Amino acid sequence: MTPKISTLANGLRVATLHMPGLETAALGLYIDVGARSETAAQNGIAHVLEHMVFKGTAKRNARQIAEDIEDVGGHLNAYTTRDHTAYYARILASDLALGIDMIADLVTSPNIDVDDLSKEKEVILQELGQALDTPDDIIFDHLSDIAWPGQAMGRPVIGTAENIRSFTAEGVKGWQTHHYHAGSMVLAAAGKVDHDRLLALADKALGGIASGTRPEPEAARYVGGERRDVRELEQVHVALAVPACTYTSPDYYAQMLFSVMLGGGMSSRLFQEVREERGLVYSISCSLSPYTDTGMFSIYLATGQDNARKAVAVTLETWAKATRDITDKEMQRAKAQAKAGLFMSMESCAGLSETLGRQMLIFGRMIPTHEIIAAIDACTAEQVMRVAHAMMLDGPLSMAIVGPETDIAPVAELQKVLV
Amino acid sequence: MTPKISTLANGLRVATLHMPGLETAALGLYIDVGARSETAAQNGIAHVLEHMVFKGTAKRNARQIAEDIEDVGGHLNAYTTRDHTAYYARILASDLALGIDMIADLVTSPNIDVDDLSKEKEVILQELGQALDTPDDIIFDHLSDIAWPGQAMGRPVIGTAENIRSFTAEGVKGWQTHHYHAGSMVLAAAGKVDHDRLLALADKALGGIASGTRPEPEAARYVGGERRDVRELEQVHVALAVPACTYTSPDYYAQMLFSVMLGGGMSSRLFQEVREERGLVYSISCSLSPYTDTGMFSIYLATGQDNARKAVAVTLETWAKATRDITDKEMQRAKAQAKAGLFMSMESCAGLSETLGRQMLIFGRMIPTHEIIAAIDACTAEQVMRVAHAMMLDGPLSMAIVGPETDIAPVAELQKVLV
Repeated sequence: MTPKISTLANGLRVATLHMPGLETAALGLYIDVGARSETAAQNGIAHVLEHMVFKGTAKRNARQIAEDIEDVGGHLNAYTTRDHTAYYARILASDLALGIDMIADLVTSPNIDVDDLSKEKEVILQELGQALDTPDDIIFDHLSDIAWPGQAMGRPVIGTAENIRSFTAEGVKGWQTHHYHAGSMVLAAAGKVDHDRLLALADKALGGIASGTRPEPEAARYVGGERRDVRELEQVHVALAVPACTYTSPDYYAQMLFSVMLGGGMSSRLFQEVREERGLVYSISCSLSPYTDTGMFSIYLATGQDNARKAVAVTLETWAKATRDITDKEMQRAKAQAKAGLFMSMESCAGLSETLGRQMLIFGRMIPTHEIIAAIDACTAEQVMRVAHAMMLDGPLSMAIVGPETDIAPVAELQKVLV
Repeated sequence: MTPKISTLANGLRVATLHMPGLETAALGLYIDVGARSETAAQNGIAHVLEHMVFKGTAKRNARQIAEDIEDVGGHLNAYTTRDHTAYYARILASDLALGIDMIADLVTSPNIDVDDLSKEKEVILQELGQALDTPDDIIFDHLSDIAWPGQAMGRPVIGTAENIRSFTAEGVKGWQTHHYHAGSMVLAAAGKVDHDRLLALADKALGGIASGTRPEPEAARYVGGERRDVRELEQVHVALAVPACTYTSPDYYAQMLFSVMLGGGMSSRLFQEVREERGLVYSISCSLSPYTDTGMFSIYLATGQDNARKAVAVTLETWAKATRDITDKEMQRAKAQAKAGLFMSMESCAGLSETLGRQMLIFGRMIPTHEIIAAIDACTAEQVMRVAHAMMLDGPLSMAIVGPETDIAPVAELQKVLV
């Protein structure tokens, strides 16, 4: 599956994947800007802008935005992460022109009205409240804060209540002007799409966006440490992390396969040891989150107050052991999981459109399936153990805990298990 | 898209949908048995059985179950609801035989070992703790308890900690023997599947299941009322409900379209009024949950302590008003949303396999797309208003609240707004 890629005169890239047999499509404008580009005082503004564009544009008020897309049964949504912002739609193929028109409308001519902003701040404060009430959500914000303290990379995407209240319409507009440039944008579409038609529509709708690229965010400096938030909850939520590879690191595939083996499924080491053998948890998993200049490998688990110390100890021992004794059988299984996951994900136009948009931003191309397969197949158990062991020791451990008080040892103590 | 359907000698139905262009498949064994069939003392046992089959079978231990499916990059999982239990897999098409063999293994020859049970009880108690810590999850259990108090329909699928601890291996086995019959089962598959091959595999793997159907669960009797759980949280979570249609009710499509109009998307009445106009919430939605002999129409919202009384009042006013003044434009939009959603869902083999399995259990057939489209198109604004108004007044309102103390009026008071 090879995408067609074109570049508008202003530098905005248009990438499409035609999927035979489909009658619907997914498309999105992926922007290489997120909370990483914010100063401490700006923290949360990228996300506020993402909300505000839905409050009205030069040609549609908030209600018309909602009605125009839902009149044709489509969905229009957006998200902001540390490194990216996306505005995306899911539509019947016959409504592709409307989808592009609406996404372009949001991004090229939002009103950012003062009254709308004060109302939307209330909605975002509710969103913040919801995140704070969800332990397995907020714990990853705490973990990032410990990993990259005092840095844009460590701050929560949603920002603080104080910041959210402080933003002005001028400030939000200024942030957009400064950060949204055509050279940092990709329009990606997958499903029943015709590249040439999409390109013509994109040229008309997005060709007027100022050229250039966004300013480079400051590089992340990993620190590590711990944070404990005592709360009356049934479970103790624990997240652990060490620095990991960047998107383009030669170690990426080895770290990814290690992550699958350690906590990627029900045959994984952590699932088998901590849940199946010991009955200590219901949820345990790990994940690899690469970024441009840094990355994070994290483990998350939730357990009872009485079991917490033991669950964390077993988790760390299982992790350390896995860096020393991966079997060839486990390697084969992790490779099969990674490859089958890739094939399954290629059958969803929404997933494929997002992968296309994000890979275009990160790599400037979509990585061909055969290249991914070859990179996975080339990994050996020895290499994965070497890379995983180095990753485990690369920088002090980060730990975030949310829940009732426990006797989980200090992170410096826990660190000693990782040898 | 028309499924192929066959019935084994023991009454188990096999239904397949071949989707051209796919290289993967999804399949599942859908069983017409869930927590609804439990007595108060048994509450939670259907879910415990669903866990225990993964702990080992006549030919595989727990680790082998996990490894055999993940060796080929597949996923194997299960869920229990009030009315159904499902064991399902997502695999590459070439591994279809393995998928069936594994699902059959789980259901036809689980060990239900005493030691495994005592370990798995700990895992399920952790799962219960996780549900209790998730306000927007647990609130729907409270809502069901208010709607159908003291009845199987009102009890949580996961059961109580006391019940979970009390189950014996003999009890779990007995529950399966009594409730798992071939006549209450459908093997459904979608994706790259060949019906005749699947049928031959199913006959071999599932043909030995005892024939017959499960005992009829007791009919549900809606009661209504309120329950408030005071908790230190950032947000007040509120769920409201009235009885709604059954799966086969002639009012189903009218109620479904009303649910879409009232709270199904960002153009919906509740989203526009409570979030966009007033800024009172981040999350607000409604849903229609039909069952065999009853149903529930519910609204969920989360808001701040100070806004809670107002948010609930505006929600109820918006609901009542919507039963009186639906416009033709709104009807058209809701129809477009329902139809586009249908087309989009038909492009996912996992979704389609589940729809096929569930519809076979509920209707004894898969409802053809053209029939759904015709039923949607036949609804008029007058009919939807009549049906929605009757639904709103059908039985006292149920209300569940989880969060900090509020001055939300008693449910009997709130009921008066619904006229």
